[in-house]
Amino acid sequence: MTTKDLVGQIFEKKSFLCVGLDTDLAKIPKHLLGDKDPIFSFNKAIIDATHQFCVAYKPNIAFYEAYGLQGWKSLERTMEYLNEKHPEMFTIADAKRGDIGNTSTRYAKAFFEALNFDSITIAPYMGRDSVEPFLEFKDKHTILLALTSNQGAFDFQTKNVGNHELYKEVLERSKTYKNAENLMYVVGATKASYLEGVRQIVPESFLLVPGVGAQGGNLQEVCKYGITKNVGLLVNSSRGILYASQGEDFAKEAANKARNIQQEMEVELGKL
Amino acid sequence: MTTKDLVGQIFEKKSFLCVGLDTDLAKIPKHLLGDKDPIFSFNKAIIDATHQFCVAYKPNIAFYEAYGLQGWKSLERTMEYLNEKHPEMFTIADAKRGDIGNTSTRYAKAFFEALNFDSITIAPYMGRDSVEPFLEFKDKHTILLALTSNQGAFDFQTKNVGNHELYKEVLERSKTYKNAENLMYVVGATKASYLEGVRQIVPESFLLVPGVGAQGGNLQEVCKYGITKNVGLLVNSSRGILYASQGEDFAKEAANKARNIQQEMEVELGKL
Repeated sequence: MTTKDLVGQIFEKKSFLCVGLDTDLAKIPKHLLGDKDPIFSFNKAIIDATHQFCVAYKPNIAFYEAYGLQGWKSLERTMEYLNEKHPEMFTIADAKRGDIGNTSTRYAKAFFEALNFDSITIAPYMGRDSVEPFLEFKDKHTILLALTSNQGAFDFQTKNVGNHELYKEVLERSKTYKNAENLMYVVGATKASYLEGVRQIVPESFLLVPGVGAQGGNLQEVCKYGITKNVGLLVNSSRGILYASQGEDFAKEAANKARNIQQEMEVELGKL
Repeated sequence: MTTKDLVGQIFEKKSFLCVGLDTDLAKIPKHLLGDKDPIFSFNKAIIDATHQFCVAYKPNIAFYEAYGLQGWKSLERTMEYLNEKHPEMFTIADAKRGDIGNTSTRYAKAFFEALNFDSITIAPYMGRDSVEPFLEFKDKHTILLALTSNQGAFDFQTKNVGNHELYKEVLERSKTYKNAENLMYVVGATKASYLEGVRQIVPESFLLVPGVGAQGGNLQEVCKYGITKNVGLLVNSSRGILYASQGEDFAKEAANKARNIQQEMEVELGKL
Protein backbone atom coordinates (compact mmCIF):
# COMPACT_ATOMS: atom_id res chain seq x y z
CA MET A 1 0.00 0.00 0.00
CA THR A 2 1.28 3.49 -0.82
CA THR A 3 1.44 6.19 1.84
CA LYS A 4 -0.98 8.19 -0.31
CA ASP A 5 -3.55 5.38 -0.14
CA LEU A 6 -3.12 5.21 3.63
CA VAL A 7 -3.70 8.94 3.98
CA GLY A 8 -6.76 8.63 1.75
CA GLN A 9 -8.19 5.93 3.99
CA ILE A 10 -7.59 8.04 7.09
CA PHE A 11 -9.54 11.00 5.73
CA GLU A 12 -12.28 8.75 4.35
CA LYS A 13 -12.82 6.92 7.62
CA LYS A 14 -11.97 9.92 9.79
CA SER A 15 -9.76 7.64 11.83
CA PHE A 16 -6.08 6.89 12.30
CA LEU A 17 -6.73 4.03 14.68
CA CYS A 18 -4.67 0.86 14.50
CA VAL A 19 -6.10 -2.18 16.28
CA GLY A 20 -3.39 -4.39 17.76
CA LEU A 21 -4.25 -8.07 17.39
CA ASP A 22 -2.45 -9.32 20.52
CA THR A 23 -4.68 -12.36 20.70
CA ASP A 24 -4.25 -14.38 23.88
CA LEU A 25 -6.12 -17.66 24.42
CA ALA A 26 -6.18 -16.94 28.16
CA LYS A 27 -8.13 -13.73 27.59
CA ILE A 28 -10.54 -14.42 24.75
CA PRO A 29 -14.14 -15.36 25.57
CA LYS A 30 -14.48 -18.94 26.78
CA HIS A 31 -17.21 -19.83 24.30
CA LEU A 32 -14.69 -19.53 21.44
CA LEU A 33 -12.28 -22.08 22.87
CA GLY A 34 -14.21 -24.99 21.38
CA ASP A 35 -13.71 -23.66 17.84
CA LYS A 36 -11.22 -25.37 15.55
CA ASP A 37 -9.08 -22.22 15.40
CA PRO A 38 -10.15 -19.97 18.30
CA ILE A 39 -7.49 -17.34 17.58
CA PHE A 40 -8.76 -16.87 14.06
CA SER A 41 -12.40 -16.96 15.19
CA PHE A 42 -11.63 -14.17 17.65
CA ASN A 43 -9.63 -12.11 15.14
CA LYS A 44 -12.32 -12.47 12.49
CA ALA A 45 -15.02 -11.30 14.90
CA ILE A 46 -12.88 -8.35 16.01
CA ILE A 47 -12.12 -7.38 12.41
CA ASP A 48 -15.77 -7.68 11.37
CA ALA A 49 -16.80 -5.47 14.30
CA THR A 50 -14.09 -2.80 14.15
CA HIS A 51 -13.04 -2.36 10.52
CA GLN A 52 -15.28 0.68 9.99
CA PHE A 53 -13.51 2.52 12.78
CA CYS A 54 -9.86 1.82 12.06
CA VAL A 55 -7.39 1.95 9.17
CA ALA A 56 -4.81 -0.58 10.32
CA TYR A 57 -4.41 -3.94 12.05
CA LYS A 58 -1.25 -4.94 13.84
CA PRO A 59 -0.82 -8.59 14.84
CA ASN A 60 1.90 -8.89 17.45
CA ILE A 61 3.84 -11.84 16.06
CA ALA A 62 4.97 -13.10 19.49
CA PHE A 63 1.39 -13.97 20.38
CA TYR A 64 1.20 -16.27 17.36
CA GLU A 65 4.69 -17.78 17.63
CA ALA A 66 3.91 -18.68 21.24
CA TYR A 67 1.47 -21.31 19.90
CA GLY A 68 3.96 -22.79 17.43
CA LEU A 69 2.59 -24.25 14.20
CA GLN A 70 -1.01 -23.66 15.20
CA GLY A 71 -0.20 -20.01 15.90
CA TRP A 72 1.36 -19.53 12.47
CA LYS A 73 -1.70 -21.10 10.91
CA SER A 74 -3.91 -18.62 12.76
CA LEU A 75 -1.71 -15.74 11.62
CA GLU A 76 -1.83 -16.91 8.00
CA ARG A 77 -5.61 -17.25 8.12
CA THR A 78 -5.95 -13.80 9.69
CA MET A 79 -3.82 -12.24 6.96
CA GLU A 80 -5.69 -14.14 4.22
CA TYR A 81 -8.94 -12.83 5.63
CA LEU A 82 -7.68 -9.26 5.80
CA ASN A 83 -6.13 -9.34 2.34
CA GLU A 84 -9.28 -10.80 0.81
CA LYS A 85 -12.06 -8.98 2.66
CA HIS A 86 -10.34 -5.72 3.61
CA PRO A 87 -7.50 -5.05 1.17
CA GLU A 88 -7.82 -1.34 2.03
CA MET A 89 -6.48 -2.03 5.53
CA PHE A 90 -2.87 -1.17 6.33
CA THR A 91 -1.34 -4.24 7.96
CA ILE A 92 1.59 -4.16 10.36
CA ALA A 93 3.65 -7.20 11.39
CA ASP A 94 4.72 -6.19 14.87
CA ALA A 95 7.78 -8.39 14.78
CA LYS A 96 10.60 -6.10 15.97
CA ARG A 97 13.08 -8.02 13.86
CA GLY A 98 16.58 -6.92 12.90
CA ASP A 99 19.49 -8.98 11.65
CA ILE A 100 22.33 -8.81 9.13
CA GLY A 101 21.67 -8.30 5.45
CA ASN A 102 20.90 -11.75 4.04
CA THR A 103 18.87 -12.66 7.12
CA SER A 104 16.88 -9.44 6.95
CA THR A 105 16.01 -10.28 3.37
CA ARG A 106 14.59 -13.60 4.62
CA TYR A 107 12.42 -11.87 7.20
CA ALA A 108 11.29 -9.33 4.61
CA LYS A 109 10.18 -12.13 2.29
CA ALA A 110 8.39 -13.94 5.12
CA PHE A 111 6.33 -10.92 6.10
CA PHE A 112 6.05 -8.82 2.92
CA GLU A 113 5.64 -11.66 0.42
CA ALA A 114 4.45 -14.89 2.06
CA LEU A 115 2.06 -13.15 4.46
CA ASN A 116 1.58 -9.99 2.37
CA PHE A 117 1.90 -7.50 5.22
CA ASP A 118 2.17 -3.83 4.24
CA SER A 119 4.75 -3.11 6.92
CA ILE A 120 6.92 -4.54 9.68
CA THR A 121 8.44 -3.15 12.88
CA ILE A 122 12.25 -3.35 13.05
CA ALA A 123 14.79 -2.76 15.83
CA PRO A 124 17.58 -0.37 14.82
CA TYR A 125 20.45 -1.66 17.00
CA MET A 126 22.31 -3.42 14.16
CA GLY A 127 22.28 -0.36 11.92
CA ARG A 128 21.98 0.39 8.23
CA ASP A 129 22.60 -3.02 6.65
CA SER A 130 20.01 -4.62 8.93
CA VAL A 131 17.32 -2.14 7.83
CA GLU A 132 17.96 -1.44 4.14
CA PRO A 133 16.95 -4.97 2.96
CA PHE A 134 13.41 -4.18 4.16
CA LEU A 135 13.39 -0.77 2.47
CA GLU A 136 13.97 -2.31 -0.95
CA PHE A 137 10.38 -3.52 -1.21
CA LYS A 138 8.20 -1.13 -3.18
CA ASP A 139 5.03 0.08 -1.43
CA LYS A 140 6.07 -1.77 1.74
CA HIS A 141 6.96 0.13 4.89
CA THR A 142 9.58 -0.37 7.56
CA ILE A 143 8.59 0.93 10.97
CA LEU A 144 11.78 1.53 12.93
CA LEU A 145 11.75 1.52 16.72
CA ALA A 146 12.83 4.98 17.80
CA LEU A 147 11.37 5.67 21.25
CA THR A 148 9.37 2.83 22.75
CA SER A 149 6.70 3.16 25.42
CA ASN A 150 8.17 0.84 28.04
CA GLN A 151 10.22 1.72 31.12
CA GLY A 152 13.32 0.14 29.55
CA ALA A 153 13.25 2.86 26.87
CA PHE A 154 15.21 4.95 29.37
CA ASP A 155 18.03 2.37 29.56
CA PHE A 156 19.57 3.27 26.20
CA GLN A 157 17.16 5.14 23.91
CA THR A 158 17.20 8.39 25.88
CA LYS A 159 20.94 8.28 26.64
CA ASN A 160 22.96 11.04 25.05
CA VAL A 161 25.00 10.15 21.97
CA GLY A 162 26.98 13.21 21.02
CA ASN A 163 24.67 16.20 21.42
CA HIS A 164 21.33 14.38 21.43
CA GLU A 165 19.60 11.22 22.61
CA LEU A 166 20.13 7.85 20.95
CA TYR A 167 16.57 7.73 19.57
CA LYS A 168 17.21 11.04 17.82
CA GLU A 169 20.43 9.64 16.41
CA VAL A 170 18.39 6.68 15.11
CA LEU A 171 15.95 9.10 13.44
CA GLU A 172 18.71 11.28 11.95
CA ARG A 173 20.82 8.44 10.65
CA SER A 174 17.91 6.47 9.23
CA LYS A 175 17.10 9.42 6.98
CA THR A 176 20.32 8.63 5.07
CA TYR A 177 19.32 4.98 4.45
CA LYS A 178 18.58 3.96 0.87
CA ASN A 179 14.83 4.22 0.13
CA ALA A 180 14.33 6.10 3.41
CA GLU A 181 10.97 7.27 2.07
CA ASN A 182 9.66 3.82 3.06
CA LEU A 183 10.43 4.46 6.73
CA MET A 184 7.96 5.05 9.51
CA TYR A 185 8.82 5.15 13.23
CA VAL A 186 7.56 3.79 16.51
CA VAL A 187 7.31 6.62 19.02
CA GLY A 188 5.75 5.85 22.39
CA ALA A 189 3.15 8.22 23.74
CA THR A 190 3.99 7.92 27.42
CA LYS A 191 5.53 11.36 27.19
CA ALA A 192 3.78 13.05 24.30
CA SER A 193 6.06 16.06 24.49
CA TYR A 194 8.86 13.86 23.09
CA LEU A 195 6.91 13.98 19.83
CA GLU A 196 7.85 17.63 19.46
CA GLY A 197 11.54 16.75 19.21
CA VAL A 198 10.76 13.85 16.89
CA ARG A 199 8.88 16.14 14.51
CA GLN A 200 11.89 18.46 14.30
CA ILE A 201 13.84 15.57 12.75
CA VAL A 202 11.12 13.76 10.77
CA PRO A 203 8.48 16.42 10.10
CA GLU A 204 6.46 14.37 7.60
CA SER A 205 7.00 10.69 8.43
CA PHE A 206 4.27 8.46 9.73
CA LEU A 207 4.62 7.60 13.40
CA LEU A 208 3.14 4.48 14.93
CA VAL A 209 2.18 5.46 18.44
CA PRO A 210 1.60 2.65 20.92
CA GLY A 211 0.69 3.29 24.49
CA VAL A 212 -2.50 5.29 24.06
CA GLY A 213 -5.03 3.74 26.38
CA ALA A 214 -3.77 0.74 28.37
CA GLN A 215 -0.23 2.09 28.48
CA GLY A 216 -1.38 5.54 29.58
CA GLY A 217 -1.01 7.97 26.68
CA ASN A 218 -3.46 10.70 25.75
CA LEU A 219 -4.80 11.22 22.25
CA GLN A 220 -5.10 15.02 22.42
CA GLU A 221 -1.52 15.36 23.60
CA VAL A 222 -0.26 13.05 20.86
CA CYS A 223 -2.05 15.11 18.22
CA LYS A 224 -0.92 18.41 19.69
CA TYR A 225 2.72 17.48 19.20
CA GLY A 226 2.64 14.84 16.48
CA ILE A 227 -0.05 15.49 13.84
CA THR A 228 0.87 16.79 10.38
CA LYS A 229 -1.20 18.05 7.47
CA ASN A 230 -1.27 14.47 6.15
CA VAL A 231 -1.96 13.26 9.68
CA GLY A 232 1.28 11.27 9.91
CA LEU A 233 0.00 9.26 12.84
CA LEU A 234 -1.26 5.75 13.45
CA VAL A 235 -2.36 5.39 17.04
CA ASN A 236 -2.55 1.84 18.31
CA SER A 237 -4.88 0.32 20.84
CA SER A 238 -4.78 -3.40 21.62
CA ARG A 239 -6.07 -4.70 24.93
CA GLY A 240 -8.50 -1.82 25.50
CA ILE A 241 -10.43 -2.90 22.40
CA LEU A 242 -9.83 -6.67 22.24
CA TYR A 243 -10.76 -7.35 25.83
CA ALA A 244 -13.41 -4.68 26.40
CA SER A 245 -15.65 -7.60 27.32
CA GLN A 246 -14.86 -11.25 27.83
CA GLY A 247 -18.47 -12.32 27.39
CA GLU A 248 -20.46 -13.24 24.29
CA ASP A 249 -20.83 -9.52 23.55
CA PHE A 250 -17.04 -9.07 23.13
CA ALA A 251 -17.26 -8.02 19.48
CA LYS A 252 -19.98 -5.46 20.15
CA GLU A 253 -18.02 -4.00 23.07
CA ALA A 254 -14.84 -3.94 20.98
CA ALA A 255 -16.76 -2.01 18.31
CA ASN A 256 -17.97 0.46 20.93
CA LYS A 257 -14.44 1.10 22.19
CA ALA A 258 -13.11 1.48 18.65
CA ARG A 259 -15.96 3.82 17.75
CA ASN A 260 -15.23 5.98 20.80
CA ILE A 261 -11.60 6.37 19.78
CA GLN A 262 -12.59 7.01 16.15
CA GLN A 263 -14.91 9.80 17.31
CA GLU A 264 -12.13 11.42 19.33
CA MET A 265 -9.91 11.15 16.25
CA GLU A 266 -12.57 12.75 14.05
CA VAL A 267 -12.51 15.78 16.36
CA GLU A 268 -8.74 16.02 16.06
CA LEU A 269 -8.87 15.66 12.26
CA GLY A 270 -11.45 18.46 12.19
CA LYS A 271 -8.82 20.80 13.57
CA LEU A 272 -6.49 20.34 10.57
CA MET B 1 21.37 -26.73 30.25
CA THR B 2 23.58 -25.28 32.98
CA THR B 3 26.71 -23.33 32.13
CA LYS B 4 28.68 -25.98 34.02
CA ASP B 5 27.35 -28.69 31.69
CA LEU B 6 28.26 -26.59 28.68
CA VAL B 7 31.82 -26.11 29.97
CA GLY B 8 32.03 -29.86 30.63
CA GLN B 9 31.02 -30.60 27.04
CA ILE B 10 33.61 -28.18 25.70
CA PHE B 11 36.46 -29.85 27.56
CA GLU B 12 35.18 -33.32 26.69
CA LYS B 13 34.91 -32.64 22.99
CA LYS B 14 37.86 -30.23 22.91
CA SER B 15 35.69 -27.88 20.91
CA PHE B 16 33.75 -24.67 21.41
CA LEU B 17 32.34 -24.71 17.89
CA CYS B 18 28.74 -23.72 17.25
CA VAL B 19 27.30 -24.76 13.89
CA GLY B 20 24.83 -22.21 12.53
CA LEU B 21 21.88 -23.93 10.83
CA ASP B 22 21.14 -21.18 8.28
CA THR B 23 19.48 -23.65 5.97
CA ASP B 24 18.63 -22.23 2.57
CA LEU B 25 16.74 -24.27 -0.04
CA ALA B 26 18.61 -22.41 -2.78
CA LYS B 27 21.95 -23.64 -1.46
CA ILE B 28 21.39 -27.19 -0.26
CA PRO B 29 22.28 -30.09 -2.58
CA LYS B 30 19.76 -30.56 -5.35
CA HIS B 31 19.25 -34.28 -4.66
CA LEU B 32 17.57 -33.40 -1.34
CA LEU B 33 14.90 -31.20 -2.91
CA GLY B 34 12.67 -34.20 -3.71
CA ASP B 35 12.43 -35.15 -0.01
CA LYS B 36 9.24 -34.46 1.89
CA ASP B 37 11.04 -32.02 4.21
CA PRO B 38 14.35 -31.12 2.52
CA ILE B 39 15.28 -28.60 5.24
CA PHE B 40 15.04 -31.25 7.93
CA SER B 41 16.79 -33.83 5.74
CA PHE B 42 19.67 -31.41 5.30
CA ASN B 43 19.82 -30.45 8.99
CA LYS B 44 19.72 -34.09 10.08
CA ALA B 45 22.58 -35.01 7.75
CA ILE B 46 24.63 -32.02 8.95
CA ILE B 47 23.97 -32.86 12.61
CA ASP B 48 24.82 -36.54 12.09
CA ALA B 49 28.07 -35.55 10.38
CA THR B 50 29.25 -32.75 12.67
CA HIS B 51 28.00 -33.46 16.19
CA GLN B 52 31.32 -34.97 17.31
CA PHE B 53 33.12 -31.75 16.47
CA CYS B 54 30.84 -29.12 17.96
CA VAL B 55 29.01 -28.33 21.20
CA ALA B 56 26.19 -26.13 19.94
CA TYR B 57 23.73 -25.69 17.08
CA LYS B 58 22.20 -22.35 16.20
CA PRO B 59 19.24 -22.30 13.81
CA ASN B 60 18.76 -18.81 12.44
CA ILE B 61 15.00 -18.44 12.84
CA ALA B 62 14.61 -16.14 9.82
CA PHE B 63 15.58 -18.97 7.49
CA TYR B 64 12.67 -21.04 8.81
CA GLU B 65 10.09 -18.25 9.05
CA ALA B 66 10.82 -17.41 5.42
CA TYR B 67 9.09 -20.69 4.45
CA GLY B 68 6.01 -20.05 6.59
CA LEU B 69 4.26 -23.05 8.11
CA GLN B 70 6.53 -25.54 6.37
CA GLY B 71 9.55 -23.74 7.79
CA TRP B 72 8.20 -23.91 11.34
CA LYS B 73 7.57 -27.59 10.87
CA SER B 74 11.18 -28.08 9.77
CA LEU B 75 12.40 -26.12 12.80
CA GLU B 76 10.25 -28.19 15.15
CA ARG B 77 11.50 -31.43 13.66
CA THR B 78 15.10 -30.24 13.88
CA MET B 79 14.70 -29.38 17.55
CA GLU B 80 12.92 -32.67 18.28
CA TYR B 81 15.79 -34.51 16.65
CA LEU B 82 18.42 -32.57 18.61
CA ASN B 83 16.57 -32.90 21.91
CA GLU B 84 16.09 -36.62 21.42
CA LYS B 85 19.35 -37.73 19.84
CA HIS B 86 21.76 -35.13 21.17
CA PRO B 87 20.42 -33.70 24.43
CA GLU B 88 24.01 -32.76 25.35
CA MET B 89 24.03 -30.12 22.63
CA PHE B 90 23.60 -26.47 23.57
CA THR B 91 20.91 -25.06 21.31
CA ILE B 92 20.58 -21.39 20.36
CA ALA B 93 17.51 -19.81 18.78
CA ASP B 94 19.09 -17.04 16.75
CA ALA B 95 15.98 -14.93 16.82
CA LYS B 96 17.21 -11.48 17.87
CA ARG B 97 13.88 -10.75 19.52
CA GLY B 98 13.10 -7.98 21.97
CA ASP B 99 9.76 -6.51 22.99
CA ILE B 100 7.95 -5.22 26.06
CA GLY B 101 7.43 -7.43 29.09
CA ASN B 102 4.31 -9.48 28.35
CA THR B 103 5.37 -9.97 24.73
CA SER B 104 8.86 -11.06 25.74
CA THR B 105 7.29 -13.67 27.98
CA ARG B 106 5.43 -15.00 24.93
CA TYR B 107 8.64 -15.28 22.91
CA ALA B 108 10.40 -16.92 25.86
CA LYS B 109 7.68 -19.56 26.06
CA ALA B 110 7.78 -20.15 22.30
CA PHE B 111 11.51 -20.80 22.23
CA PHE B 112 12.36 -22.08 25.72
CA GLU B 113 9.27 -24.24 26.30
CA ALA B 114 7.52 -25.17 23.05
CA LEU B 115 10.76 -25.69 21.11
CA ASN B 116 12.97 -26.43 24.15
CA PHE B 117 15.92 -24.28 23.08
CA ASP B 118 18.62 -23.71 25.72
CA SER B 119 19.09 -20.10 24.72
CA ILE B 120 17.93 -17.25 22.50
CA THR B 121 19.56 -14.14 21.05
CA ILE B 122 17.94 -10.85 22.10
CA ALA B 123 18.35 -7.24 20.93
CA PRO B 124 18.95 -4.82 23.82
CA TYR B 125 17.42 -1.61 22.38
CA MET B 126 14.23 -1.73 24.48
CA GLY B 127 16.13 -2.15 27.75
CA ARG B 128 15.68 -3.98 31.02
CA ASP B 129 11.98 -4.93 30.91
CA SER B 130 12.40 -6.41 27.44
CA VAL B 131 15.23 -8.70 28.61
CA GLU B 132 14.35 -9.75 32.16
CA PRO B 133 11.35 -11.92 31.13
CA PHE B 134 13.82 -14.21 29.35
CA LEU B 135 16.19 -14.30 32.32
CA GLU B 136 13.51 -15.74 34.59
CA PHE B 137 13.81 -19.20 33.04
CA LYS B 138 16.09 -21.47 35.05
CA ASP B 139 18.97 -23.08 33.13
CA LYS B 140 18.01 -21.13 30.01
CA HIS B 141 20.34 -18.46 28.64
CA THR B 142 19.74 -15.08 27.09
CA ILE B 143 22.36 -14.02 24.59
CA LEU B 144 22.25 -10.25 24.34
CA LEU B 145 23.52 -8.50 21.21
CA ALA B 146 26.40 -6.31 22.31
CA LEU B 147 28.71 -5.79 19.34
CA THR B 148 27.58 -7.40 16.11
CA SER B 149 29.80 -8.37 13.20
CA ASN B 150 28.12 -6.38 10.44
CA GLN B 151 29.06 -2.98 9.02
CA GLY B 152 25.95 -1.41 10.60
CA ALA B 153 27.42 -2.14 14.04
CA PHE B 154 29.25 1.17 13.63
CA ASP B 155 25.99 3.10 13.20
CA PHE B 156 25.02 3.03 16.88
CA GLN B 157 26.84 0.31 18.84
CA THR B 158 30.24 1.96 18.78
CA LYS B 159 28.92 5.49 19.34
CA ASN B 160 29.94 7.07 22.61
CA VAL B 161 27.35 7.17 25.37
CA GLY B 162 28.88 9.06 28.26
CA ASN B 163 32.49 7.93 28.56
CA HIS B 164 32.26 4.70 26.59
CA GLU B 165 30.64 3.08 23.56
CA LEU B 166 26.99 2.03 23.52
CA TYR B 167 27.85 -1.69 23.40
CA LYS B 168 29.86 -1.25 26.61
CA GLU B 169 26.90 0.54 28.18
CA VAL B 170 24.76 -2.47 27.17
CA LEU B 171 27.25 -4.82 28.84
CA GLU B 172 27.52 -2.70 32.01
CA ARG B 173 23.83 -2.10 32.43
CA SER B 174 22.82 -5.69 31.71
CA LYS B 175 24.93 -6.80 34.68
CA THR B 176 22.34 -5.12 36.92
CA TYR B 177 19.41 -7.04 35.38
CA LYS B 178 17.65 -9.59 37.58
CA ASN B 179 19.11 -13.10 37.07
CA ALA B 180 22.01 -11.59 35.11
CA GLU B 181 23.90 -14.83 35.65
CA ASN B 182 21.80 -16.23 32.78
CA LEU B 183 23.26 -13.70 30.32
CA MET B 184 25.68 -14.37 27.51
CA TYR B 185 26.64 -11.87 24.81
CA VAL B 186 27.06 -11.69 21.05
CA VAL B 187 30.40 -10.11 20.24
CA GLY B 188 31.48 -10.02 16.61
CA ALA B 189 34.99 -11.07 15.75
CA THR B 190 35.61 -8.68 12.88
CA LYS B 191 37.89 -6.73 15.22
CA ALA B 192 39.07 -9.24 17.78
CA SER B 193 40.80 -6.54 19.81
CA TYR B 194 37.32 -5.31 20.84
CA LEU B 195 37.14 -8.49 22.91
CA GLU B 196 39.76 -7.06 25.26
CA GLY B 197 37.46 -4.22 26.27
CA VAL B 198 34.52 -6.61 26.55
CA ARG B 199 36.46 -8.85 28.92
CA GLN B 200 37.15 -5.88 31.20
CA ILE B 201 33.40 -5.56 31.76
CA VAL B 202 32.27 -9.22 31.61
CA PRO B 203 35.38 -11.20 32.54
CA GLU B 204 33.61 -14.55 32.95
CA SER B 205 30.52 -14.50 30.72
CA PHE B 206 30.13 -16.70 27.70
CA LEU B 207 30.46 -14.84 24.40
CA LEU B 208 28.87 -16.06 21.20
CA VAL B 209 31.27 -15.01 18.46
CA PRO B 210 29.91 -14.96 14.92
CA GLY B 211 31.98 -13.91 12.01
CA VAL B 212 34.84 -16.39 12.22
CA GLY B 213 35.29 -17.77 8.74
CA ALA B 214 32.86 -16.40 6.14
CA GLN B 215 32.65 -13.04 7.88
CA GLY B 216 36.43 -12.75 8.20
CA GLY B 217 37.41 -13.30 11.85
CA ASN B 218 40.40 -15.25 13.07
CA LEU B 219 40.22 -17.94 15.73
CA GLN B 220 43.65 -17.30 17.26
CA GLU B 221 42.91 -13.60 17.65
CA VAL B 222 39.52 -14.33 19.23
CA CYS B 223 41.13 -16.67 21.76
CA LYS B 224 44.00 -14.28 22.49
CA TYR B 225 41.58 -11.61 23.68
CA GLY B 226 38.46 -13.53 24.64
CA ILE B 227 39.23 -16.92 26.19
CA THR B 228 38.81 -17.49 29.94
CA LYS B 229 39.77 -20.38 32.23
CA ASN B 230 36.29 -21.83 31.60
CA VAL B 231 36.71 -21.02 27.90
CA GLY B 232 33.79 -18.56 27.87
CA LEU B 233 33.53 -18.70 24.08
CA LEU B 234 31.23 -20.25 21.54
CA VAL B 235 32.53 -19.57 18.07
CA ASN B 236 30.00 -19.91 15.30
CA SER B 237 30.46 -21.02 11.72
CA SER B 238 27.49 -21.38 9.39
CA ARG B 239 27.97 -21.19 5.65
CA GLY B 240 31.60 -22.39 5.72
CA ILE B 241 30.43 -25.73 7.11
CA LEU B 242 26.91 -26.12 5.66
CA TYR B 243 27.87 -25.35 2.10
CA ALA B 244 31.40 -26.76 2.01
CA SER B 245 30.09 -28.88 -0.86
CA GLN B 246 26.82 -28.73 -2.74
CA GLY B 247 27.19 -32.25 -4.07
CA GLU B 248 26.18 -35.63 -2.65
CA ASP B 249 29.28 -35.49 -0.42
CA PHE B 250 28.01 -32.36 1.40
CA ALA B 251 27.80 -34.03 4.81
CA LYS B 252 31.29 -35.50 4.55
CA GLU B 253 32.72 -32.13 3.50
CA ALA B 254 30.83 -30.39 6.31
CA ALA B 255 32.36 -32.87 8.76
CA ASN B 256 35.83 -32.14 7.36
CA LYS B 257 35.37 -28.40 7.81
CA ALA B 258 34.00 -28.85 11.32
CA ARG B 259 36.86 -31.22 12.22
CA ASN B 260 39.42 -28.69 10.98
CA ILE B 261 37.95 -25.99 13.19
CA GLN B 262 37.73 -28.41 16.14
CA GLN B 263 41.41 -29.23 15.73
CA GLU B 264 42.35 -25.56 15.76
CA MET B 265 40.22 -25.16 18.88
CA GLU B 266 41.94 -28.12 20.55
CA VAL B 267 45.26 -26.33 20.09
CA GLU B 268 43.86 -23.19 21.72
CA LEU B 269 42.36 -25.18 24.62
CA GLY B 270 45.74 -26.82 25.12
CA LYS B 271 47.17 -23.40 25.97
CA LEU B 272 44.84 -22.91 28.97
